[in-house]
Amino acid sequence: MRALYFDGRELKLVDEYSLTRRGEALIKVSLAGICGTDLEILKGYGGFRGVLGHEFVGIVEESSNPALIGERVVGEINVGCNTCEFCRKGLMRHCPTRTVLGIRGRDGSFAEYLTLPEQNLHIVPDNVNDTQAVFTEPLAAAYEVLEQVQVEPSWKVAVLGDGRLGILIAQVLAPLVAQLDVYGRHDRKLDILRELGINALKEASNTASHSYDLVVEATGREKGFGQAVELVKPRGTVILKSTIAQTYQLDLSAVVVNEVRIVGSRCGPFKPALNALARNVVKVEKLVDDVYRLDSYENAFKQASSSETLKVLIKP
Amino acid sequence: MRALYFDGRELKLVDEYSLTRRGEALIKVSLAGICGTDLEILKGYGGFRGVLGHEFVGIVEESSNPALIGERVVGEINVGCNTCEFCRKGLMRHCPTRTVLGIRGRDGSFAEYLTLPEQNLHIVPDNVNDTQAVFTEPLAAAYEVLEQVQVEPSWKVAVLGDGRLGILIAQVLAPLVAQLDVYGRHDRKLDILRELGINALKEASNTASHSYDLVVEATGREKGFGQAVELVKPRGTVILKSTIAQTYQLDLSAVVVNEVRIVGSRCGPFKPALNALARNVVKVEKLVDDVYRLDSYENAFKQASSSETLKVLIKP
Repeated sequence: MRALYFDGRELKLVDEYSLTRRGEALIKVSLAGICGTDLEILKGYGGFRGVLGHEFVGIVEESSNPALIGERVVGEINVGCNTCEFCRKGLMRHCPTRTVLGIRGRDGSFAEYLTLPEQNLHIVPDNVNDTQAVFTEPLAAAYEVLEQVQVEPSWKVAVLGDGRLGILIAQVLAPLVAQLDVYGRHDRKLDILRELGINALKEASNTASHSYDLVVEATGREKGFGQAVELVKPRGTVILKSTIAQTYQLDLSAVVVNEVRIVGSRCGPFKPALNALARNVVKVEKLVDDVYRLDSYENAFKQASSSETLKVLIKP
Repeated sequence: MRALYFDGRELKLVDEYSLTRRGEALIKVSLAGICGTDLEILKGYGGFRGVLGHEFVGIVEESSNPALIGERVVGEINVGCNTCEFCRKGLMRHCPTRTVLGIRGRDGSFAEYLTLPEQNLHIVPDNVNDTQAVFTEPLAAAYEVLEQVQVEPSWKVAVLGDGRLGILIAQVLAPLVAQLDVYGRHDRKLDILRELGINALKEASNTASHSYDLVVEATGREKGFGQAVELVKPRGTVILKSTIAQTYQLDLSAVVVNEVRIVGSRCGPFKPALNALARNVVKVEKLVDDVYRLDSYENAFKQASSSETLKVLIKP
C-alpha cells in the first residue's frame, strides 16, 4: 500500500509499504487530518519512526467482529497493554507500554490502510459526514478539558490560540460559562470565531491580567504558558494543551504565589465529540483549508505548516 | 525600636526605627524565624523594602480587643482589603491589594515590635513553647497541601527537599499515605528525618520515575520542578512550594503528555498547624540550629544561607 513514512529525518511517500498486521481491525482510510503534533514530530518531538498521522475516518475491511465490517469508523489512538493500573482504569492513553497511532510504535493514518484494536473503534453516525468525522480526535481533545476540570457556569474563561484546537475548545466551552474570550493573532481565524458567535480578541493584553477563572493554553507557542499564568486569577486553573519539542524559559514564582493549578491535557473522550458532531453543536467545516491526495503530501505539509492555515486533510 | 531593615540592597540594624501604627494589635516579638523567602527577598524577589521577617511568636501589648492583651500569639501574614472576591471567601492571601508581613508593603517580625489586625492572630496553647510556636507559619504552609489535594490513603508520595519545609511537609503527610519518601542531599538532614520515622533517600534517582501519585517539590532549587515531573505518575499531582527569584529552563511536554496536575502552594491554615504542635504530632525542636540576638543578624543570616542549616531563629 502507499504510505507517508517518516524515517527520523524526512517524510516520504512509499509506494509498497508493508503494513504490520496485528490481529486487529483493518481499516481503509477515507480521510485523514494533519495535526500540530505531526508537525512537531517532523521537528523531532517524540523520536517517532513510521507512518505518520493519527486523525482519520475510514471503513472497516477486516475484523474479528463481523458486525464491524463495512462500518464507517473513527478510532482512539492509544493502544494499551490492558493489564496495567492505567489500562484497568480505562486510561490506556497513560499505559507506560502503550503504542499510539502515528505517534509511538504504531503506523498511522497517512496511508491507504491502518490497523487498530476493535475496542478503539467508534462507529460514525450517518448524519456525520467524513469531513466532520475526521475532527473527532481533536474534538475529543477539546472535551478532555471537561473531564479534568469541573467548569462552573459563573466562570470567565480565556482560550489562548486561534488555531484548530483553540477554535474547537472555544466551541465546547462557550455554551457552559458566563464569558469566554479567545485570544489570537490571525484576523481570518478570529473572524471564523466571531461567525461562530464567539468573542475573539487580538492577542492577550495586560488589561485582563489575573481575571480569568480558567485559561486554556492552545497557542503551540513558547510564550503561551507565561501569558496563561498572567491571565489566570489566583487559585484559578490553566489547562496546557500545547506539546512543543523544546524547553521554555519560565518563571514559576507567580504559579506558587497565586496558587495556580496547571493541568496538562492530551487526547480525550470520543463519545461526547461524536455526539457534538451529530447534533451539529460544534461546527468544523469552516476549519478545512484544503484536501490533498497522498502524492501531493509535500504541498499538504507546506500548507499545514503555515500559521495562516487551520486544517489540511489528506485523502489517500 | 530596633529593627532589621532591608533597603533593597542591604539589610541593616536600625536602632530608632519608627513602626507605622495602623490601629492594629501591637505585638512584642518573642522569637522570629528566618525563612527561605527572606533569603530570596535579599536576592531581589518581590522588590520588598522594609523590616524583614514573617515567622514569629509574641505577646500582645496593645489591642482594641482587651481579651487579647497579654496573650501569646502567632499571626497570619496576609492582610487583605476585606471587600474583594478573595477576601470575602476568606482567601486574604490572594487579595490583589493585600499587604504581607515582612514581604509586601508591611514591616515584619525581625524587630522588637510588629502590628497585625486582630483577626490575623491566633492564641498559642499553653503546652506549645515559643520555639515550637515560631514554626506555626511554615507548618501552616505544609498543611496547605491538604487543603489543595484530596490525599488518598493508598498513595505513594515523594517530598523533594530535606530542608525545613520538606521535613514539615513529610511529617504532615507520612501518617496519611501508604508510602512516603523524602529525597534530599544532606546526610544530617536525612538522619533527622529517619529519627522522625520517615523514609529518607539521597537525591532522586531515575529508578523511581513516574511512580508517585503525589510529589511535593520543596527543594528551593531550579532542578526541583523537572525532577518532580519525572517522578510523578501520569495523571498524578505535583505541588510546587519553592518560590525562587529566577526563571527556569523547562520542558513542559511531559506535563501535557502525562496530564500531570501542578498546583502552586503558599502559606496555609494556622489552626491545624497549632493543633499539630499542641498534640506534638509534628516535631520541630530538632530543626533549630541556633538562636541569635538582633545585633548578631549578620551571623544569623550567614548561617541561615548555608545549605547545611535548617532553621535559624532571632530573639529580638
